[in-house]
Amino acid sequence: VTSGSVPADGSIAWHRADLLDDHDRRTLVAGVRADALVHLAWCAKPPAYWRDPDNLRWVGATLELVRAFASCGGTRVVGAGTCAEYDWRYGLCTEGLTPVNAATLYGASKAACGAVLDAYGRDAGISAAWARLFFLFGPHDSAVRLIPSLVASLSAGEPARCTAGGHYRDFLPVEDAAAAIVALLQTDVTGPVNVGSGTPRSVASMARAVASCLGRETLLTVDEAVSEAPLVTASIERLHREVGWRPTREFAAALESTVRWWASAQAREASA
Amino acid sequence: VTSGSVPADGSIAWHRADLLDDHDRRTLVAGVRADALVHLAWCAKPPAYWRDPDNLRWVGATLELVRAFASCGGTRVVGAGTCAEYDWRYGLCTEGLTPVNAATLYGASKAACGAVLDAYGRDAGISAAWARLFFLFGPHDSAVRLIPSLVASLSAGEPARCTAGGHYRDFLPVEDAAAAIVALLQTDVTGPVNVGSGTPRSVASMARAVASCLGRETLLTVDEAVSEAPLVTASIERLHREVGWRPTREFAAALESTVRWWASAQAREASA
Repeated sequence: VTSGSVPADGSIAWHRADLLDDHDRRTLVAGVRADALVHLAWCAKPPAYWRDPDNLRWVGATLELVRAFASCGGTRVVGAGTCAEYDWRYGLCTEGLTPVNAATLYGASKAACGAVLDAYGRDAGISAAWARLFFLFGPHDSAVRLIPSLVASLSAGEPARCTAGGHYRDFLPVEDAAAAIVALLQTDVTGPVNVGSGTPRSVASMARAVASCLGRETLLTVDEAVSEAPLVTASIERLHREVGWRPTREFAAALESTVRWWASAQAREASA
Repeated sequence: VTSGSVPADGSIAWHRADLLDDHDRRTLVAGVRADALVHLAWCAKPPAYWRDPDNLRWVGATLELVRAFASCGGTRVVGAGTCAEYDWRYGLCTEGLTPVNAATLYGASKAACGAVLDAYGRDAGISAAWARLFFLFGPHDSAVRLIPSLVASLSAGEPARCTAGGHYRDFLPVEDAAAAIVALLQTDVTGPVNVGSGTPRSVASMARAVASCLGRETLLTVDEAVSEAPLVTASIERLHREVGWRPTREFAAALESTVRWWASAQAREASA
């Protein structure tokens, strides 16, 4: 959490709590008595989160958080799901159509949590939506991900290799994901809603665009091989028709802005 | 839990704990260090359990129990799932084929828990199976269920009405369910396994059999109407082929034994 970007005019109040701590969580919810909840916290450190046993704790903590929120008068919840809930053999992921069949503990845990919240929402009379986030990129991410690791090598004048370049994924700037979640919160749409760009892009094209931003195309080697799950992309029909939201950021500009942010952050860190 | 039927020769040790209490649960698991776990506890009081918000707590507590068990050296788990995980519009419920699409919070919570344990088992290197129990009957059940409520009315010489008689369900004596769970525990079969009779029987035929046991057929009115989910029955192919187990009790005898048990229990209670 970075509180540096929060306006100091008192329009936003910060409350810190450890959601994995029963007492902390209950005290927070009973004290704030919010009517709307956006819950994004989870174990998410790559690559460990795919198999982190803490996924089990987050299922329980998330369910207890929403239950406490409902009993304190809350009415609208948006939780964070993932494209990893879907069976990736189908390629195009459509809510309510593409089978949910996660290949990982993270995906299975998110799918489980979303399904219980869907049923609980109906019973408890609260409105619960589940934003299935696709492949986000932007600043403040883990430095081991594709873009920051490419930026680190290429900026240093070192060769970089992009493996699995032939895979198509649905990439979305994190600012767009945040805007989609806010839009979703302000509706009464319930259940799973994909939050993606709706446009499949190859990992190779992402890597080439990063190298191009830095003027280091010659340092990049791209391996176009494809292993499992050649295509994972979102249907954004539900997001568009029911939530009334579409990605607004120009993709190349968002990618360039992310590359610049990482280059600066890494330069600051190197000189610190 | 009834400890009255446990042999007093020391071959079985009882440990009591509140599994919803973090400290109790951890102390139990670390103290016993079992290699096998059969976990049946859940909120199950009819009819409240279908929508009881405590289903959320049991999801979390179950996941934490299995996680603690694995980290204390446990290797084999059988959890209790339910036929209510399936989409009942399909009628015949087959593991891995019939869609999981619970209509209730209970079913959604059980399905979620089973799916996470399946993924966790693969990651944590433990062997986890999920016994999807169908419609059990027997002694020591809740007195509001079909058989005890019919026995109560008919034994007292009062008329009884069986509604929804045209529904076909898969009924199994609870002793058979227990034997199936033990058989499943002794294999390495993982994932969902239906525990049912494989034989659909109408609710009307069950009610008539109860009345017949008591010689009170004339007091029974059966409404053959069917509303939702006319047929819910188990495929027991996986139970038979992979676990090597089939129901062994003769159905009519098991039903009669249950009816006698309830008649005696209700007579004892009335005279107490």
